[in-house]
Amino acid sequence: MPSFSATTGGVDATLDSPLARGFSVGPIVARRAAFDAPLALACGRTLPQYELAYETYGALNADASNAVLICHALNASHHVAGYYAGAPDDIGWWDNMIGPGKPLDTDRFFVVGVNNLGSCFGSTGPASTNPATGRSWGADFPLLTVEDWVDAQSRLADRLGIRQWAAVMGGSLGGMQALDWAIRYPDRIRNALVIAAAPNLSAQNIAFNEVARQAILTDPDFHDGHFEAQHTKPRRGLRVARMIGHITYLSDEQMEERFGRELLDGLKFSFAPEFQIESYLRYQGEKFADYYDANTYLRITKALDYFDPAAATGGSLARALAPATCRFLVVAFTTDWRFSPARSREIVKALVDNNRDVTYAEITAPHGHDAFLLDDRRYHGIVRAWFERIAREFAA
Amino acid sequence: MPSFSATTGGVDATLDSPLARGFSVGPIVARRAAFDAPLALACGRTLPQYELAYETYGALNADASNAVLICHALNASHHVAGYYAGAPDDIGWWDNMIGPGKPLDTDRFFVVGVNNLGSCFGSTGPASTNPATGRSWGADFPLLTVEDWVDAQSRLADRLGIRQWAAVMGGSLGGMQALDWAIRYPDRIRNALVIAAAPNLSAQNIAFNEVARQAILTDPDFHDGHFEAQHTKPRRGLRVARMIGHITYLSDEQMEERFGRELLDGLKFSFAPEFQIESYLRYQGEKFADYYDANTYLRITKALDYFDPAAATGGSLARALAPATCRFLVVAFTTDWRFSPARSREIVKALVDNNRDVTYAEITAPHGHDAFLLDDRRYHGIVRAWFERIAREFAA
Repeated sequence: MPSFSATTGGVDATLDSPLARGFSVGPIVARRAAFDAPLALACGRTLPQYELAYETYGALNADASNAVLICHALNASHHVAGYYAGAPDDIGWWDNMIGPGKPLDTDRFFVVGVNNLGSCFGSTGPASTNPATGRSWGADFPLLTVEDWVDAQSRLADRLGIRQWAAVMGGSLGGMQALDWAIRYPDRIRNALVIAAAPNLSAQNIAFNEVARQAILTDPDFHDGHFEAQHTKPRRGLRVARMIGHITYLSDEQMEERFGRELLDGLKFSFAPEFQIESYLRYQGEKFADYYDANTYLRITKALDYFDPAAATGGSLARALAPATCRFLVVAFTTDWRFSPARSREIVKALVDNNRDVTYAEITAPHGHDAFLLDDRRYHGIVRAWFERIAREFAA
Repeated sequence: MPSFSATTGGVDATLDSPLARGFSVGPIVARRAAFDAPLALACGRTLPQYELAYETYGALNADASNAVLICHALNASHHVAGYYAGAPDDIGWWDNMIGPGKPLDTDRFFVVGVNNLGSCFGSTGPASTNPATGRSWGADFPLLTVEDWVDAQSRLADRLGIRQWAAVMGGSLGGMQALDWAIRYPDRIRNALVIAAAPNLSAQNIAFNEVARQAILTDPDFHDGHFEAQHTKPRRGLRVARMIGHITYLSDEQMEERFGRELLDGLKFSFAPEFQIESYLRYQGEKFADYYDANTYLRITKALDYFDPAAATGGSLARALAPATCRFLVVAFTTDWRFSPARSREIVKALVDNNRDVTYAEITAPHGHDAFLLDDRRYHGIVRAWFERIAREFAA
């Protein structure tokens, strides 16, 4: 167990009461698992072999009953908590949630972060080498679904000796994966934590994804997805895609409070950034274009669009969720307009219709969709209480 | 006065009770007014000369007391009502509102539609010839403000012999122009109809404009705004800009009802359009790229961003509106999330603070921002009653 010390990083400096809020898991190492058994995909194609990048925090107990899987959203990865040795600022994306003494306490749970197939952070994806050609897959990499990801994750669970997850947890697209685990692997999951998610995308959600995709697809540097062979990347498209996405992650209220109509340096009557919000969005776009892969972005937005468990049950979400037997914690945030509380309540309603054990928390928070990544006392308090209950079960 | 007949077009076929809802103004002719007196602009530059395209419907009465100015929004023009001879399908954008027997009755009012400076539909703009160079202005055309437009409109009023408008009316950006007329030309306006507007753009509004601009500015075919000289146009950028805009014009609910998750022809696992909403947005984007000018789009979104009458009064909208003495009709639509009712209520509050004569109508409508262009009985009924009151005054 990593302990708190000056050299291993330790306390979250931003929290007002670090001892009460937990410590960092400390320096961690990313791992890779290689799979040679072909994976049949929803699109009809098969991945002959693949690798999954993952990280683990805490220790698996003797009967492997304390394992928790964290599923990531659009632009995140398997790097969920802690930091890499020699890179103390490269902190996991859900580090405020996971660590010794944190809501998901790594002193009690064995936590697994996994990078999804098709991503650009270590698991096999469009930038990986296609064994059939010896060149990078690029545009030839198949389109994936949430179900494909979960199937691949189930093989990683096998590899790690985890027959049943104490919990699968995710926010946004990660919450959709938790939902799919509950539906299609009901005997392999005891708890699903479905946070800031939706049972499918609305027309407006799909519309935003499509505009982002069009920005990438029509960028002359995209080269039909084979931009790597041209030694370039569609930076323009990635920038615009990220700017659009970013608007939908923040609430109108939060954007108003953070930026309002603040100017950088007076009106210039030019197309250089004049308002703070313009400068902020351009910065976010640039950063994203630096580190993200366009073919991955296209595929992940498509996986979001495709997810719709009720499509297989004539539109009935209740019937789609009937196979799910685990307990559910569903969390939504009041100002989230990407996946609004109303969408979470659809999930809750469908579970109640099935007489399932579900707890619903609607958190009053100003931060929009991004709230699921932030440290909010009530939100974290509910997650903490949920995991304490689970821990009592395997400790008993 | 145009009369109803089979050859002049006549009844709006879509209305269920045409006799009660009015007739078309029939075939009309667009006009141009040339101005040689230089126009000083907010950006510090001066337009040495310019033309304004406009149309008129109905007849100006003897004391010129029945004139109504219609101000247009982002992508509209002076072609507000009727149709052009030989082009019966080229119908004005507010034809359901304006005509004989319609809410703004051209049997009683003389209605003027004007194309704003910087537009691409007839008034002087980036695609016009710069007299200093003999070539099109392109990127050298100045950036404009709502105030610049209103100043130019006031000269058109002079030219037409209209000292005081019975009303200035507009939706969205058009409503901002009506507001500016009321503030800066209080003795030239008796009524302001401010529909689906806001006292300024929010950070989120500016953010959407900025993403659209970035899509255009970074399109390699933009050529720093001098694309005409390169015999091309930034179609990619215009498409993406329009797609983004379009999402914000429709309500989430309306998009869900019209498109939902409907597929065109099953899942294809490709980036061809699969959902109806994708196909719809691509079509809207293509159409827009055909007819719209990129330099105009950039400037009109900037004019929107800049509009903020309260900036000159230390942020106090009440003080900004103190000079306005006309009567106000402020209309908002419940599902408009671009300029929400809360933004209209800010205007109402500031007018009430000044003891001004203001009527506020919040219309329950599912259509989002676009509702101001649609035929809704309650909405049109209120506008009709408003103009009947005005007509009684000058008829008396």
